Amino acid sequence: MAEFDLIERIRSRCEIARNDVRLGIGDDAAILAPPPGHELVVCTDTLVAGVHFPLDTPAEAIGWKALAVNLSDLAAMGATPAWALLALTLPEADADFVDRFASGFAALAAQHHVALVGGDTTSGPLTITVTVHGFVPPGQALRRDGARVGDQVFVTGTLGDAAAALVARRRHTPASQREALDVRLDRPEPRLACGAALRGQATACIDVSDGLLADLRHVAARSGVGIEIDAAALPASPALLGAFDGDERLALQLGGGDDYELAFTAAPALAGDLLRDLARIGCGATRIGRVVDGEGVQAFDATGAAVTLARGGWEHFA
Amino acid sequence: MAEFDLIERIRSRCEIARNDVRLGIGDDAAILAPPPGHELVVCTDTLVAGVHFPLDTPAEAIGWKALAVNLSDLAAMGATPAWALLALTLPEADADFVDRFASGFAALAAQHHVALVGGDTTSGPLTITVTVHGFVPPGQALRRDGARVGDQVFVTGTLGDAAAALVARRRHTPASQREALDVRLDRPEPRLACGAALRGQATACIDVSDGLLADLRHVAARSGVGIEIDAAALPASPALLGAFDGDERLALQLGGGDDYELAFTAAPALAGDLLRDLARIGCGATRIGRVVDGEGVQAFDATGAAVTLARGGWEHFA
Repeated sequence: MAEFDLIERIRSRCEIARNDVRLGIGDDAAILAPPPGHELVVCTDTLVAGVHFPLDTPAEAIGWKALAVNLSDLAAMGATPAWALLALTLPEADADFVDRFASGFAALAAQHHVALVGGDTTSGPLTITVTVHGFVPPGQALRRDGARVGDQVFVTGTLGDAAAALVARRRHTPASQREALDVRLDRPEPRLACGAALRGQATACIDVSDGLLADLRHVAARSGVGIEIDAAALPASPALLGAFDGDERLALQLGGGDDYELAFTAAPALAGDLLRDLARIGCGATRIGRVVDGEGVQAFDATGAAVTLARGGWEHFA
Repeated sequence: MAEFDLIERIRSRCEIARNDVRLGIGDDAAILAPPPGHELVVCTDTLVAGVHFPLDTPAEAIGWKALAVNLSDLAAMGATPAWALLALTLPEADADFVDRFASGFAALAAQHHVALVGGDTTSGPLTITVTVHGFVPPGQALRRDGARVGDQVFVTGTLGDAAAALVARRRHTPASQREALDVRLDRPEPRLACGAALRGQATACIDVSDGLLADLRHVAARSGVGIEIDAAALPASPALLGAFDGDERLALQLGGGDDYELAFTAAPALAGDLLRDLARIGCGATRIGRVVDGEGVQAFDATGAAVTLARGGWEHFA
């Protein structure tokens, strides 16, 4: 099978009409018309088979997730998504895999009106790199460096489900108990509406991809502050509550990656209105801590004792 | 070694100041300010170790080439480059490799004033995906679909050197004879000034990455025309002339990939001025054929006989 056929298979499944796309797939590059008076927000993320997703992950889920992890970065910036490019490296030209991969990618792209405008298909170990573009009004992007002492710390949704899904699979937990966790691992929902609602409200924002502690450490470092987390306040899904207890659950909530919730900081005076605004768009958020003088991130239990974890989220090459 | 250290090693070697970069590496995404009144040109290309470059390629050359193949796509669109993102998948956190890779990438980026604004580093088989952005005045991008019957066909520089380098290595040709060929394979020069000069002049353009015949077939198909090539007119470097003869040389010129010259079409009335303009900016081009009614690409020898090749350039998964 020729490279051209693979591209055509993907293109035909990902047709989203946008009038800011002057020329899409099929030339040396795409030609795009950014909206006047906006800034462009751009990021790229790679998924490697066996590193970022289990080797038995369904092809549809791989396609969905490859786009989702990138859209989550746009959500964390408060950007409105627009265009994506897909670089797909495949060990063999497996038309069925490509069709199912493209279907998963396209399903999420359609939800957020994202046009696939270009890419590359190459032969090699299964690796997917997606680049996404979004827009923000000038100066309004959410960043990691704006947290201020006295701000409160929040997180959307619930924490720990995606990491719990991996543990549950290893333990052969019954499928009925794993289902809700698996969906969080395989089909993360990027919090785009939430990120957009946080523009002009949150002082700093990041998506929870490597684990809450690990990600908040970036916010603390870039903002030049410390962060204290109330472990008892961390939100948990019914599925997590049903399958994991005590320290094990807490470790998943503090250290588990791949949840793609948004962690953000905001001034206390704004918090009430902000949480109501988020609830109105279907995105619950929970207050989980505060920004303090100092550095680093520390969690405390209900008695006020510091919580220490064997590892605080994972880092590649750690 | 942590992912963060790798990113910092790369970032510190790629510092290009551009005032259209509002926020570069270090957040969930970059924030960029596209110039008003321009279109954005975007593409992404992946290099897989052992597929797109020999496994013993120096790290500096891999870094250079990963950017070069992408800038070549911008050149083919007539775009002025601006920003790049780098997704680097590495089998191990080899600081020396990363430093040398980043140095090669940075050397080419500095030549063309390209800022590295984001990326991702992951653990896995050596694979590099670069995404680049450039600008063109509205409607002036060069495309594959504008060739018209009666146009002449041109190519910049010389053809076949990069493919010849691979053959020469296999044959253990003396290093002194290979040097000029190796440079073409390892350090391709994207024809950005040439592409910009072709705006408003060329009717269609493509970069020669998969081989002249294979690439011109895309122009013919997208433009709905046929293309005839005069094999005797194809430009050859002194190094190619010194190392390869006859049909073997012709096969390299017609079918060899990785040269990253620009093949373009233009109306005969413009040809004289156009070639003078290109020569003035140090980019020689040669007339190699014509656009005709019909479809596909056919080369002819000096006697007018059709030239047939065992394979007309390579296609991945072919």
